[in-house]
Amino acid sequence: MNFDEIITLDKADPLAKKRQEFDLPANTIYLDGNSLGALPKVVKSRVAEVVSQQWGNDLIKSWNSHSWIDLPIKVGEKIAPIIGAGQGQVICCDSISVNLFKLLCSAFKLNSERTVVLSTKDNFPTDLYMVQGLSDLLGPDLCQLQMVEEQDIQQSLTESVAALLLTQVNFRTGRLLDMAKLTQLAHDKGVLVIWDLAHSAGALPVELDKCEVDFAVGCGYKYLNGGPGSPAFLYVAKRHQQAVKQPLSGWMGHAKPFAFDAQYHPSLNINQFQCGTPSVISMSALDAALDVWQDVDMLQIRNKSEALAAVFTKLINMNECLHELILCSPDNAHQRGSQLAFSHDAAFSICQALIEKGVIADFRAPNILRFGFTPLYTSFEDIWKAVTTLVDIVDSELYKNPRFNIALKVT
Amino acid sequence: MNFDEIITLDKADPLAKKRQEFDLPANTIYLDGNSLGALPKVVKSRVAEVVSQQWGNDLIKSWNSHSWIDLPIKVGEKIAPIIGAGQGQVICCDSISVNLFKLLCSAFKLNSERTVVLSTKDNFPTDLYMVQGLSDLLGPDLCQLQMVEEQDIQQSLTESVAALLLTQVNFRTGRLLDMAKLTQLAHDKGVLVIWDLAHSAGALPVELDKCEVDFAVGCGYKYLNGGPGSPAFLYVAKRHQQAVKQPLSGWMGHAKPFAFDAQYHPSLNINQFQCGTPSVISMSALDAALDVWQDVDMLQIRNKSEALAAVFTKLINMNECLHELILCSPDNAHQRGSQLAFSHDAAFSICQALIEKGVIADFRAPNILRFGFTPLYTSFEDIWKAVTTLVDIVDSELYKNPRFNIALKVT
Repeated sequence: MNFDEIITLDKADPLAKKRQEFDLPANTIYLDGNSLGALPKVVKSRVAEVVSQQWGNDLIKSWNSHSWIDLPIKVGEKIAPIIGAGQGQVICCDSISVNLFKLLCSAFKLNSERTVVLSTKDNFPTDLYMVQGLSDLLGPDLCQLQMVEEQDIQQSLTESVAALLLTQVNFRTGRLLDMAKLTQLAHDKGVLVIWDLAHSAGALPVELDKCEVDFAVGCGYKYLNGGPGSPAFLYVAKRHQQAVKQPLSGWMGHAKPFAFDAQYHPSLNINQFQCGTPSVISMSALDAALDVWQDVDMLQIRNKSEALAAVFTKLINMNECLHELILCSPDNAHQRGSQLAFSHDAAFSICQALIEKGVIADFRAPNILRFGFTPLYTSFEDIWKAVTTLVDIVDSELYKNPRFNIALKVT
Repeated sequence: MNFDEIITLDKADPLAKKRQEFDLPANTIYLDGNSLGALPKVVKSRVAEVVSQQWGNDLIKSWNSHSWIDLPIKVGEKIAPIIGAGQGQVICCDSISVNLFKLLCSAFKLNSERTVVLSTKDNFPTDLYMVQGLSDLLGPDLCQLQMVEEQDIQQSLTESVAALLLTQVNFRTGRLLDMAKLTQLAHDKGVLVIWDLAHSAGALPVELDKCEVDFAVGCGYKYLNGGPGSPAFLYVAKRHQQAVKQPLSGWMGHAKPFAFDAQYHPSLNINQFQCGTPSVISMSALDAALDVWQDVDMLQIRNKSEALAAVFTKLINMNECLHELILCSPDNAHQRGSQLAFSHDAAFSICQALIEKGVIADFRAPNILRFGFTPLYTSFEDIWKAVTTLVDIVDSELYKNPRFNIALKVT
């Protein structure tokens, strides 16, 4: 595989034109869109307009005149087709963590005889922490977290399990779980399923409705490019919306919030899952960012994602000096999300050296180097340059320089 | 009282110069800063920089290089002096509603033998709703909401009350509760106090530490001018921080969030009250907005607030046509926040007519017309013009025109 072949791949890429919709920094190869998506150009003008015109000039009137009050639903409906959800089931609000709390409580409402939340040991920690927080609040008689290895999920689906909480794509390894199969297995045992789509929404085709998923949460700031700390979203299947009740019953989830009634009466639709006042500036950024997806086919996203990873792997394997990088992601492309993870004893220092050289990857404790592929703006040439830089760093042992062993608050 | 006297008041106002730090729309008198604060000029450039440079150019590195990870603490520390709080007790995160849930649960942790949350019938609804949500989750044996009239608070502080939940300034009437006295009365009965500062933070001097308050929440988008849906804040007195545990235990409240440990170990300081990833763009807007407060004396704020209300009342009383506007706020300025509320059967239509004429007040169901005074940017001339416009509308009966009886989603 040579550079000419790489250029040919970029020329044949039907998504190549999407890259120009993003503001990407010069001299940078960005392979960390799975942590923070890049800036869509349209967001800059939208945020400026929301701040100067809508807030600055139109002030309080904008709740009506610029439909701020409808943003959570509007943004939810833009996310819905990306995750295979029909209308009226997705809303944008709060963070993944807060939304998980709402959905865990909802699952216990529907499955009130059961006490266990089953999850995997290597699920993203905040998912596990939210169950632990609920367990601490309700007591172990009402809520316990059971963590198992992925291969033990099926045998652990017992009659005490109220909800199965899984992240579709593992944040470290990129392993992709089989949503259809696991949801079916859970339902067979009367278990409700909550899927965390943090690393899958916008990364690959997701089919919530088709898989008959009960609940889901996901992230605005990764593949959806909504900006740092962008509001999250949640999905509640229509069949559950009348029966559930979630405890974070803030005024925006009330059937008539502006009646200022002292008694809470929930909206009997997805609106119930709102809590406080929506974060208008951040949510407007995400709203604009989602317009980039309007002409995008999720199958093309998946095909390009797999091709980017295949080229990356091929180039890694061509370079003997990289043999100490051990692939932690599944070999089979169909069992992966849109990232590759490698373990290496010096993963942290290699990551820092890459960043110094303009290749932005990320490190996950204890020893994982992650490379994320975001088909909207990652090119095959990016992959070529990234691996070339990686070869330079490892071959020259540059990463052993003490300056790359630095303390960072966030890694 | 005539226009010359008004101009004299503006000339003598030590806060008059602050107005130029805001972008106020032309031909508009804005008396709704108690609902949504106006746009500080410094926010526009800060938000543009966060979006284009920090996010667009520096991408994921900004968590360290632009200290995004420290924003919740940094913003909390900027709010602290405005509400009379020493260091390490205030953090910016989530919404008031979500934060109330954390603090209600914290109060029950500390007062675990007790089951009642005492509040007032006319507290802001979301405060009541959050207790109702918790009560529904825990069951009435563990959590009940008791709502009483303000004058019955003292006699209702029994040994079953775990927490007293009060809003310092009533959202409708502007009535200001006596924080020192009520906190003391509660403590005498072993009751913890949670103060909602939505209509007081930035409106008047608040003395959380001096009053030995236990917990508080407040709003970023009203008097603090952080923008629509700006993140909220919460306060936890240092003496409680080691003992409490809150159930919305997301990864940002973990002692070591980037160790990605499967077990939750809370930060043993105010950090524990964070939950998910902070909303960087919105929180940066609030961070910039708070710089406006650096040279502001809260006593000057209070003095001007009282003077604005006094002039408003005087001008209202001078105009016989306004006698159907009945003051719902306390007569005594020391018992009010920074707003005046009047009831009128046609309050909604009058409000809409005022808005058409460029005077932005607001309506609260069922029949309240609210005028908010924000001493940083409200001038005495604004007050003069507002009352003059009100006189025109009522005297001419303009407000009876059917076009002012319109349906709005948000009122």
